[in-house]
Amino acid sequence: MDKLLKNLKYVFEAKSIAIIGASDNPEKLGCVIFKNLIEGGFGGKIYPINPKYENLLGLKCYPDVLAVKGNIDAAIIATPAQTVPGILGQCGEKKIKGAVVLSGGFAEVGNSALEEQVKKICIEHGVALIGPNCLGVLNPHTRIDSIFMPFYKFQRPAPGNIAFITQSGGVGSAIVDLAASYGVGISKFISYGNGAVISEAGLMDYLEADARTEIIILYIEGAKDGRKLFEAMKRTNRKKPIIVLKAGRGGRASDAARSHTGNLAGDYLAYKAAFRQAKVVEAESLEELFDFVKIFRQTLPHGREVGVITNGGGIGVLTADALQQEGLELGSMEPKTRKTVSALLPAYGSAGNPLDLIADAGVEKFSGAIEAFMQDADMDAIIIDVLFQVPPIDERLLKVLIKASDDKRKPIAVVAMGGKYTEEQRRMLEGNGVPTYNNPLSAVKAVKKLAEYAEYRRLL
Amino acid sequence: MDKLLKNLKYVFEAKSIAIIGASDNPEKLGCVIFKNLIEGGFGGKIYPINPKYENLLGLKCYPDVLAVKGNIDAAIIATPAQTVPGILGQCGEKKIKGAVVLSGGFAEVGNSALEEQVKKICIEHGVALIGPNCLGVLNPHTRIDSIFMPFYKFQRPAPGNIAFITQSGGVGSAIVDLAASYGVGISKFISYGNGAVISEAGLMDYLEADARTEIIILYIEGAKDGRKLFEAMKRTNRKKPIIVLKAGRGGRASDAARSHTGNLAGDYLAYKAAFRQAKVVEAESLEELFDFVKIFRQTLPHGREVGVITNGGGIGVLTADALQQEGLELGSMEPKTRKTVSALLPAYGSAGNPLDLIADAGVEKFSGAIEAFMQDADMDAIIIDVLFQVPPIDERLLKVLIKASDDKRKPIAVVAMGGKYTEEQRRMLEGNGVPTYNNPLSAVKAVKKLAEYAEYRRLL
Repeated sequence: MDKLLKNLKYVFEAKSIAIIGASDNPEKLGCVIFKNLIEGGFGGKIYPINPKYENLLGLKCYPDVLAVKGNIDAAIIATPAQTVPGILGQCGEKKIKGAVVLSGGFAEVGNSALEEQVKKICIEHGVALIGPNCLGVLNPHTRIDSIFMPFYKFQRPAPGNIAFITQSGGVGSAIVDLAASYGVGISKFISYGNGAVISEAGLMDYLEADARTEIIILYIEGAKDGRKLFEAMKRTNRKKPIIVLKAGRGGRASDAARSHTGNLAGDYLAYKAAFRQAKVVEAESLEELFDFVKIFRQTLPHGREVGVITNGGGIGVLTADALQQEGLELGSMEPKTRKTVSALLPAYGSAGNPLDLIADAGVEKFSGAIEAFMQDADMDAIIIDVLFQVPPIDERLLKVLIKASDDKRKPIAVVAMGGKYTEEQRRMLEGNGVPTYNNPLSAVKAVKKLAEYAEYRRLL
Repeated sequence: MDKLLKNLKYVFEAKSIAIIGASDNPEKLGCVIFKNLIEGGFGGKIYPINPKYENLLGLKCYPDVLAVKGNIDAAIIATPAQTVPGILGQCGEKKIKGAVVLSGGFAEVGNSALEEQVKKICIEHGVALIGPNCLGVLNPHTRIDSIFMPFYKFQRPAPGNIAFITQSGGVGSAIVDLAASYGVGISKFISYGNGAVISEAGLMDYLEADARTEIIILYIEGAKDGRKLFEAMKRTNRKKPIIVLKAGRGGRASDAARSHTGNLAGDYLAYKAAFRQAKVVEAESLEELFDFVKIFRQTLPHGREVGVITNGGGIGVLTADALQQEGLELGSMEPKTRKTVSALLPAYGSAGNPLDLIADAGVEKFSGAIEAFMQDADMDAIIIDVLFQVPPIDERLLKVLIKASDDKRKPIAVVAMGGKYTEEQRRMLEGNGVPTYNNPLSAVKAVKKLAEYAEYRRLL
């Protein structure tokens, strides 16, 4: 299996790709992915394969991979299930090392024999296979892209350091599309579907060694091999935080999961115990998954004491509520901090934590308060609640927040709730790596996960 | 107090308004609100009041309200705290029935005597007062608007049937701004701050009788009179659902609340018990507050069985998980429904609940499945998970979803997660009254609250 894992690089870093089932009929998968690969800016060679065409979009089309003279690193296969074993056999003969099978119609609909056949062929020829029944891969660094969703509906994220392994193509694409719209970059997106040859454990091992990946997200319904996955997570999580969402938690939800990717969803409690033991970060919902990922781009905190700065008293109160509910603490304030921030407040203001700068506060007061909190040894992380709606706040605040986010002394999270204007500010912050939330509770939950992971890392 | 409550209509329906402290200096509150009132399209008379000016923005400016010859229904006051009692006295003399005091500097900073003075004067003259220390009111029906936030930063919502009472101006404005950006209309926004004269209980009574209000949101830190509020909520909630968020839940969060609006945050457990007894809908976070409001525009369900339709298997699994977690049920499917939906699926598809139409499904399949679920007596509500990213889905689906949302047979909720394209679809849905969520758990929690409220209403 080690050879297979090594060959995965041909999927992610291929210099030449065959699109098997390429077409010019826009209703066909093979047309959409062919076009996406060209228009997405993949710099390597592309070989469309389809016996029905001599040329496709100006490129010579081949009847099969064996007809291609040059070397081919990887194949993306979008042909009917029953043709896949034969095609993979030819790929093996052609020494193609990586493949993605997008087509469904295997174990998830009861055709386990067909899937076994696929597996056997890949192992025999050393073809590292992603799929079948998946969206495949997206690598923004190399522009390798097998996603059949059009660009205008599904934004491709920028290069970044977050890898996303997902059993469900739909769930994965929804999150990556969301990430892209907020300017959150990724290192790799891997929708592995049935995982016939390379399962989540293998992908985890691959990403552990991947220099471009620093954070790993996993969406899983049921693992191919729970024990192996657990071991891989445990190992990897010591170096790179893993954030996991387990779906199909029991009863009829498990049934739904089985008919989705052909895997038993398994006992959720067993998964939960394994996650705890491996100290990976468990998200309870899609939303948390995205919320948590963002904060893990920040510095790890040294403890659980949080400082809160706000220009909206009520948002500060809600943040304090959330901290209490989640078992984090409002940092007590060092006397020197109290002195510094008092100077920022009107005569009747009170220098507490949460620190309410009141709605009159401009950018300088935020900047002063953030620096004072950064210097305060009683604050391990800073949550900054910004009401962008008030007149004294302008775009200069973005710079202050980006600087605070880049500051390695402490992690920060920004809370900003509102309509279009605030939403624009949020996107600009996110695009610059500032974890930004639309409500205090989500920010607090994220900070808590970061603090817990930091505690684990300190124990290593 | 009854007379005061009756006079509240002069705040919300005023035909003539005095802006006390009006100015042409854009840094002054009195300038921003004066301009906002004019530019917002208020159709009545506006009297700027400020002894320093003879004219302001082309309108004659008066030294005080007594100098105005015509009748004045309401005054919006944005002058320093110490001038407010004198000004309110003049308002009383002038028979102005409604007033809003935006200025801070009263009980919230320890000036309780000043606040008492304000209260006495208003009661004496029958002036229904909103404030002090607040954003005041916004009535999209009459375009009365005392919010000092500029239009480009804070969108004004369209007229609608949701009233929003908030103790915190910041929290309130963030939510209303968000609502506006999603096209969710409101009947009234009331930021009442210290609530010196008219408290939340009075506002509740007023809204109970308000023909334009069908749903009431309340954000509260600490009630002026908890018992009165409880009685008012109990009465009102029998007719109009109340959704409440209580902040300042204990310890240091309560301290923060006190310095914010001068009210004791009170014992959260007592509030919680009161909310339960009054059967109002409690939100645990700002996000839930907004999530819950949206679903209450839907028909009340007859039970707790939910049908789930999806074109993304994984999202369906997550929805099933969330239903299980929240104590709702996946509706078993009537045989005739099974037959109908089977015809919509490929040969290998399975007609279950969640119903996975798979990513190939186009608009017609969604439409057929929704109608089948609407007819199924085992489904009380329908959650529709849409992956807008896949090629077969186009804008025609919006029409199908809007029709389903307008269908009085059952409530629906839509789940759609993704980037810019999906976000646009979400906004169009919301603008047409379709409750739309960016993750299954939020949708399920909202449906649960609606089901619980429906159970309560059936018992009345």
